[in-house]
Amino acid sequence: MSWFEQKRIFLDYASATPVLPEVKQVMEKYGSKVFYNPSAIYKEGLFVKKDIEQYRTRVARALGVAQQGIVFTSGGTESDNLAILGTFETLRESQNKKPHIIISSIEHPSVIASAKEVVRRGGEMSVLKVNEEGIVSIEALSKLIKRNTFLISIGLANNEIGTIQPIPKIGRLVREYRKTHKSIYPYLHTDASQTPSFLSTNLESLQTDLMTLDASKIYGPKGVGVLALRAGVKIHPTIFGGDQEGGRRAGTPNSALIAGFTLALELAQKNKEKESSRLESFRKYFIETIKKNVPKAIFNGSISSHLPNIVSVSVPGIMSEFVLLKLDREGVLASVGSACSFDGKISGSSVIRALGKTELSESTLRFSFGRFTNENDVRQAVKIFCRLIGVVVK
Amino acid sequence: MSWFEQKRIFLDYASATPVLPEVKQVMEKYGSKVFYNPSAIYKEGLFVKKDIEQYRTRVARALGVAQQGIVFTSGGTESDNLAILGTFETLRESQNKKPHIIISSIEHPSVIASAKEVVRRGGEMSVLKVNEEGIVSIEALSKLIKRNTFLISIGLANNEIGTIQPIPKIGRLVREYRKTHKSIYPYLHTDASQTPSFLSTNLESLQTDLMTLDASKIYGPKGVGVLALRAGVKIHPTIFGGDQEGGRRAGTPNSALIAGFTLALELAQKNKEKESSRLESFRKYFIETIKKNVPKAIFNGSISSHLPNIVSVSVPGIMSEFVLLKLDREGVLASVGSACSFDGKISGSSVIRALGKTELSESTLRFSFGRFTNENDVRQAVKIFCRLIGVVVK
Repeated sequence: MSWFEQKRIFLDYASATPVLPEVKQVMEKYGSKVFYNPSAIYKEGLFVKKDIEQYRTRVARALGVAQQGIVFTSGGTESDNLAILGTFETLRESQNKKPHIIISSIEHPSVIASAKEVVRRGGEMSVLKVNEEGIVSIEALSKLIKRNTFLISIGLANNEIGTIQPIPKIGRLVREYRKTHKSIYPYLHTDASQTPSFLSTNLESLQTDLMTLDASKIYGPKGVGVLALRAGVKIHPTIFGGDQEGGRRAGTPNSALIAGFTLALELAQKNKEKESSRLESFRKYFIETIKKNVPKAIFNGSISSHLPNIVSVSVPGIMSEFVLLKLDREGVLASVGSACSFDGKISGSSVIRALGKTELSESTLRFSFGRFTNENDVRQAVKIFCRLIGVVVK
Repeated sequence: MSWFEQKRIFLDYASATPVLPEVKQVMEKYGSKVFYNPSAIYKEGLFVKKDIEQYRTRVARALGVAQQGIVFTSGGTESDNLAILGTFETLRESQNKKPHIIISSIEHPSVIASAKEVVRRGGEMSVLKVNEEGIVSIEALSKLIKRNTFLISIGLANNEIGTIQPIPKIGRLVREYRKTHKSIYPYLHTDASQTPSFLSTNLESLQTDLMTLDASKIYGPKGVGVLALRAGVKIHPTIFGGDQEGGRRAGTPNSALIAGFTLALELAQKNKEKESSRLESFRKYFIETIKKNVPKAIFNGSISSHLPNIVSVSVPGIMSEFVLLKLDREGVLASVGSACSFDGKISGSSVIRALGKTELSESTLRFSFGRFTNENDVRQAVKIFCRLIGVVVK
């Protein structure tokens, strides 16, 4: 039996999700039939423009910001870049000669690389450590904030270990700081790409100023994301040209992808309670089964504050890539962590190292569940995993 | 009869093109079924990765560059940004303290805005004038090149007036300069977004170092473009994160859009001779009919060196936006020029002003033909146009 005939169990939803049929359907209209440029002044152009503005209103409503607070981008990576370099570049002519950014030690490669680019362009960066559960300390953060801090960028939930950060608490600290120091800075940015299927994406309840989202993690199309901005937040573009997206992102707006993003986001938010409890039960079963059969297994992330769909498990002594290949051969699709590898020189997971578990960084696997995962998949997959690392599940 | 029941004549192919059915078909496979992240190490991920590399090879072949010379982006605007800011940023730590860019006076807004950003970041810019046909002077260009010139960016064909620039001649001048001065700079970049349906896109025969392409102008999907690089050309990214696209453009590669781009480009190149002569005959008829009936009409662009699908016509005394609205009501879809408006403060076309025809900048319309334009459309449209400006076609 070759691999494409074999029943495959996809447990890598944190890296990619299939496009839902209903999302595909709203995108169909555009492309071959309604392909017009929304800047054109004939009726068909105005029609596309109106469509896009209606989608923008719906996204704004889902995030609790004004319509002008939505910037459509080509994806989460571009949104992170726009949040970080877009706020940094507004300061080029300011008094602040060395703008300072704070990121956590377990950020996505797009946040880390953008912050490094801030440094290359003359700014400075501080890295906020996390505890062994992957949670940042509010107290440590408050000590890092300086008068020249323009941005704090901390992901809402980590894509490798699923830990959820106390973003509303951080937001309150940041607002307090701004009030006390009569400053509009620092802004708080959070990459929430992993969360809309499980958590609220309301900027106000998250007390955040900028938020990154990506359609391809929530059963929407690849190639579209959003940077959401609280009213009053100023950014410089990172892509220059026409005055689309309120002058903050040039390029013809992509009606098909915007339509797909909008519906995917609404569906994710609508189903989040039901989907969370369904996947949390899988997660619990998966972890319990491994614990029972592989006593030396170590689970990464927070016990109290985590996404319901991610299991990060380390088994001392195993080589994760080797186990993954064996899983693949047996029909289970899992991952070592972020698919967006960043530092090719050091092997193993930088997130696991940041938890203080350097010795486990090459012995860790991520299983992530999603919409089409069922009980049988989970049962099968955990059995295969245990067998592959030399334990027969009773 | 409402507008969407009326037979509509679309003559705005330079602003947007519908996706061809065969292009749509190659994209179908991805999204719902083959949605995997190409960075994943299980078979499905490797399968997507292999697909993308095969598409890259095909695009490279169509452009006459090495496979590593192809960077997939989110569109022509991003490609222009990457060409200009990507080469500029490689010079940040160099001896060249004030890198100098040359653009022509009729560039696309994405080129103009990127060059202005170079200036904002500490570089300097020269604007090369064009003659009344819209053609740059090689002699004038040679006088503008300085020791600190890092890039010359001149579009292969203008999207408003259709003028084709002597890019191979410019390329030879640039190569000669580099040889004489023993320098790797300046590079030559050309935005060729408007041309693959009509002209060769081979970088070597165009003697160019960097080239921008966009799928949405060649019957491919919106949201994908290419920056093609001659071997040895170094660029810094403009979007930072994972090491995708050889570390030059972060973000999950978009298999569906890349597949669509590839086929659209191949089809454009395959049909270019046939399509050119078909549309050139329409253009000729369109122009002749106006000339015969509206003696005061003025045609913009080059007589000897132009795209076969663009007619730019000025009629002294008319208000182009007003005529466009009337055309729309009668079922003809045309445009004032670039849909990517740039300078909202000055009305009228900046391209027409650059030709030395300031008085006509608000009295100019662009008609652009394409794949689904037929003889009857052209006959009808020109009749309606003449009638609307007060002339009955005999």
